[in-house]
Amino acid sequence: MPQTDTLPPSTPAAPLSQAAPQTGLSGRIVPPVLPPKAADAESLDVWGFKDTAFGINERGHVHVTGNRYDGMSGQELPNLMPWFQSVVGIPMDLSKRLTSAYPCPVAPSRPADAFLAEIRSVLAADQIATDDAIRLRHGHGHTQEEMYAIKAGKLGRVPDYVVYPTDEEQVIALVEAAKRHDVCLIPYGGGTNVTDALRCPEQELRPIVSVDMKRMNRILWIDPANRMACVQAGMVGRHLMEQLGQHGFTMGHEPDSIEFSTLGGWISTHASGMKKNRYGNIEDLVLDVRVVTLNGVLSRTAQAPRESIGVDPRLWLFGSEGSFGIITTAVVKLFPLPPVRKYGSVLFKTFQQGVDFMYALTQTGRIPASVRLMDNLQFQFGQALKPAPGGLKALKSKLEKAYVLNVLGYDPNQMVACTLVFEGDAAEVAEQERTVYRVAKRFGGMKAGAENGKRGYALTYSIAYIRDFIMTLNVMAESFETSVPWTQAVSLCENVRRRIEAEHKARGLAGNPFVSCRVTQVYETGVAIYFYYAYYAKDVEHPSDVYLAIEKAAREEVLASGGSLSHHHGVGKLRRGFLPAIMSPAALEWRRLAKQAIDPGNVFGCNNLIPADDQGAPPA
Amino acid sequence: MPQTDTLPPSTPAAPLSQAAPQTGLSGRIVPPVLPPKAADAESLDVWGFKDTAFGINERGHVHVTGNRYDGMSGQELPNLMPWFQSVVGIPMDLSKRLTSAYPCPVAPSRPADAFLAEIRSVLAADQIATDDAIRLRHGHGHTQEEMYAIKAGKLGRVPDYVVYPTDEEQVIALVEAAKRHDVCLIPYGGGTNVTDALRCPEQELRPIVSVDMKRMNRILWIDPANRMACVQAGMVGRHLMEQLGQHGFTMGHEPDSIEFSTLGGWISTHASGMKKNRYGNIEDLVLDVRVVTLNGVLSRTAQAPRESIGVDPRLWLFGSEGSFGIITTAVVKLFPLPPVRKYGSVLFKTFQQGVDFMYALTQTGRIPASVRLMDNLQFQFGQALKPAPGGLKALKSKLEKAYVLNVLGYDPNQMVACTLVFEGDAAEVAEQERTVYRVAKRFGGMKAGAENGKRGYALTYSIAYIRDFIMTLNVMAESFETSVPWTQAVSLCENVRRRIEAEHKARGLAGNPFVSCRVTQVYETGVAIYFYYAYYAKDVEHPSDVYLAIEKAAREEVLASGGSLSHHHGVGKLRRGFLPAIMSPAALEWRRLAKQAIDPGNVFGCNNLIPADDQGAPPA
Repeated sequence: MPQTDTLPPSTPAAPLSQAAPQTGLSGRIVPPVLPPKAADAESLDVWGFKDTAFGINERGHVHVTGNRYDGMSGQELPNLMPWFQSVVGIPMDLSKRLTSAYPCPVAPSRPADAFLAEIRSVLAADQIATDDAIRLRHGHGHTQEEMYAIKAGKLGRVPDYVVYPTDEEQVIALVEAAKRHDVCLIPYGGGTNVTDALRCPEQELRPIVSVDMKRMNRILWIDPANRMACVQAGMVGRHLMEQLGQHGFTMGHEPDSIEFSTLGGWISTHASGMKKNRYGNIEDLVLDVRVVTLNGVLSRTAQAPRESIGVDPRLWLFGSEGSFGIITTAVVKLFPLPPVRKYGSVLFKTFQQGVDFMYALTQTGRIPASVRLMDNLQFQFGQALKPAPGGLKALKSKLEKAYVLNVLGYDPNQMVACTLVFEGDAAEVAEQERTVYRVAKRFGGMKAGAENGKRGYALTYSIAYIRDFIMTLNVMAESFETSVPWTQAVSLCENVRRRIEAEHKARGLAGNPFVSCRVTQVYETGVAIYFYYAYYAKDVEHPSDVYLAIEKAAREEVLASGGSLSHHHGVGKLRRGFLPAIMSPAALEWRRLAKQAIDPGNVFGCNNLIPADDQGAPPA
Repeated sequence: MPQTDTLPPSTPAAPLSQAAPQTGLSGRIVPPVLPPKAADAESLDVWGFKDTAFGINERGHVHVTGNRYDGMSGQELPNLMPWFQSVVGIPMDLSKRLTSAYPCPVAPSRPADAFLAEIRSVLAADQIATDDAIRLRHGHGHTQEEMYAIKAGKLGRVPDYVVYPTDEEQVIALVEAAKRHDVCLIPYGGGTNVTDALRCPEQELRPIVSVDMKRMNRILWIDPANRMACVQAGMVGRHLMEQLGQHGFTMGHEPDSIEFSTLGGWISTHASGMKKNRYGNIEDLVLDVRVVTLNGVLSRTAQAPRESIGVDPRLWLFGSEGSFGIITTAVVKLFPLPPVRKYGSVLFKTFQQGVDFMYALTQTGRIPASVRLMDNLQFQFGQALKPAPGGLKALKSKLEKAYVLNVLGYDPNQMVACTLVFEGDAAEVAEQERTVYRVAKRFGGMKAGAENGKRGYALTYSIAYIRDFIMTLNVMAESFETSVPWTQAVSLCENVRRRIEAEHKARGLAGNPFVSCRVTQVYETGVAIYFYYAYYAKDVEHPSDVYLAIEKAAREEVLASGGSLSHHHGVGKLRRGFLPAIMSPAALEWRRLAKQAIDPGNVFGCNNLIPADDQGAPPA
């Protein structure tokens, strides 16, 4: 595998006076509409593309279909289940599968004749869906409890109708019709949230209409000289990346869900991308938004690089999770594609040493686009995911391993791996590499190559598939994340692991819980930490509820350990019960009053603004 | 003058595991309270410190008192007025002075007996002021119309009382008493705004109480390992810098008003510092705020480096200009003091070439902490401010000048100067310097030395004094700023200059208007531009109103040329009449509704949320 990606050349930096006429913004490019691709079909009942599925083959090994993911698709992963069983510590009965009853039953659509009659004058027939499967898909995101419910239980309520606007005028018409006819609207982007954000309120008596933004998926213009683009909110991350790349640009925003999540969703959930060290988080990348609200369209006349214009409603959109209106377009910053992208990895003997390294690296100011630290269990997981080795490669790998373990004293049950992505021009990348490896040495780090680094990032995209796959084997799993000051990072990880182990034991659950974490982002003041927690739930009654209760306990531990409620996943309905634990009553009241003022009829009734543990939230 | 500043050593980057116990945040430092300094006394009727005053000495030359500002204080500036007269193009009668009637009369305090009785149970006698001079000072900022009015006219209304809380409990008591007794509160920081933000509403019938935060001026704690500090909102920038510096840190926020403006003011006005390239703007630096509102204290339980916690009221504070409540403390990011600070300057033959250079430099990603471009007039201004030359220095300067002008073909009426501040470690600074001078060469730039660079930044602090000084000579002057995409930067500058010239001519004003600009900030997507406009107003009736009318026309031209309403000064009352020109009715309605919901009694009644040209705003 090459150590350096080949990237298309970036736009040459022409002198400004030649780059565009000085008379205005006439250098804007209007890119063509991207044609849809047949291969991009998505599964409804599990995460991801239809062409990628994990299963157990005739030899009893895990096997992955398709050819989408390098080093995994089309491969057999013979080490995965044996390794997982060794962690869980009890034999797993792989023949006992969860019987999927997908699609679970959904209640008939509630009548909304007057609303439908009105919107039929604006939307074509194919822009209104009443199909049960479609309604079901729009009633959930990707939390474990939702993914379990759609296969082994049912959702309490799903949208009664799904609509697909193609432009802002249609969105305005939808909002006006909803207001007039007492309908509840829920904006829908990629449907990838892991916060129960799309869960319909059980007690909602009005018809619920999901507004699926996927047909508002265009780049309206690219301004190459001023490094901006205006993009419709329903555009999916991978399409945005692809089309900007054709013009030599990137937005630099790469959340783990980029294959499916949308620009509007990123803004609504206050998203963070893995390369934020170079490009910034979503709030650093969005210069302007247009939002259709009950009071009309929130908009601005011009985009400036940075402003002080009094109280700025644009800022209220970050984290609003559909509470205030429907984002239709945003103007985002662009960056030229970096001439060089390289991967790297470093091994450390302990998690503490790895965190010490990251801290020291952050102080240097020469931080690669991404730097992540996987704990020992996640490092082992990465090894277990390797396809069956064979030939020369296997031999080499074996030799390397023996050297690391025996000669240098790395303990396979302690060592951790840091993965790195470097982006920039050649000199910049070289300087970052020198800095990384020099600092790593101070903390006993050992270079472990680009391929391992690249593998680490590839894992990001495949792990969501694995969660849904192991659910069929009665393993309940989910991720959650937080952010925390540096000095509390390691203790928070310890506390959460211990708390989950205690909760597991207290419930008399079999085997060991799987608890693993990685440090996914570094800041001057602290880090973001991402946890995976799984347990083997064979013969457990209500396995999803048990999971939820333990996850809730883990969240309590996160807060008690100085962590935030969320670094980038958001609040949704899963975590709004915790809001009173992190904000003063005055802060909660501000939110409630703002919502009431802006949407007095609660048309956007599926929101995160009510800090109550209602609607089937996890048991206390 | 040394080319490199000597900075105190920064805190060594200890390994995290040694930097602080892993059990929490016990490594916090509580710094002592800074004793007040006699030399820090401020003028009431003009900008700045009392020890620094511009005047005309017995030889008829401009002279500056004191020793505060290197290269200017204690010096004679014989070139300043001759040069300024040559720009204005008509002889100025320096003997004809504006007669200062400062302090202008103020109306007696309106009775507020019940309010005062209540707050006297919480505040000591020296925490409540009724003195006219103090009331007057709290009724204005530093716009030209305000500074003119207090000397040659009067303010419409000033606060009836000024209070000085020393802790958050007192602020809470003040807000509760104001609510109970129907009193209007105005938070007061450094009083340095240039937006009429502190101008009291004429039609306000309630007693008005200015809440001066200057006694809440402490750093409550510094967390060196996690690079955070908790600071009271009334702390003045220069004190914050000084005390953080004693611990090896900086907040990195250096607005031009840093000598007098406060942390609370920075947040309220959405401030920008000259070194934002390295440290970020205020919104990048503030991790948390505590705000006393009508509904209680807006607060959070913990500070995390970055979060996604739903709609975040903290973000509503940026730019709120006192509309929602009183900020009492903020948690801010810290940076170690840079080991190296260097200045630099580069000359270009034209403004366009200078902007082309800045654009190309921004593309490299190796941008110094500050890079600014002064237009030709401002370059000349800098030369004219040089003290009387003499001896070897004068000779050298003369030779250099002749070489630049004759041999290299720089036209003294066209050439512009770029000034630079480099901060970082030695390698970082060296790389930035190499990049700057390499790119500058591409655009015909010529290195002009560190001393000229340093002078350029020193000018920042002295120019506000000059404005008030030349007002006594009947020159009306003020600055205003904007931000704009790159391709519109040069045309915006041209348009504004032409518009001011046309307005000047249309009014039959004598001589030429002085219009100068500098590019003060660079972003990937555009720049911030700072204008100075002055005119000689001898024998002009209502000279301040004429100025205001022309400034308003200039602002119209800024907006028409693609510029923002403000980059960092804010809206205040000076610019709120323009809000409907930049925001949709829905956006304005959002702001109005949010204000109404959060402060229904309009206790914070001196705000920027009413987009109306009321209260003596500039004539249409």
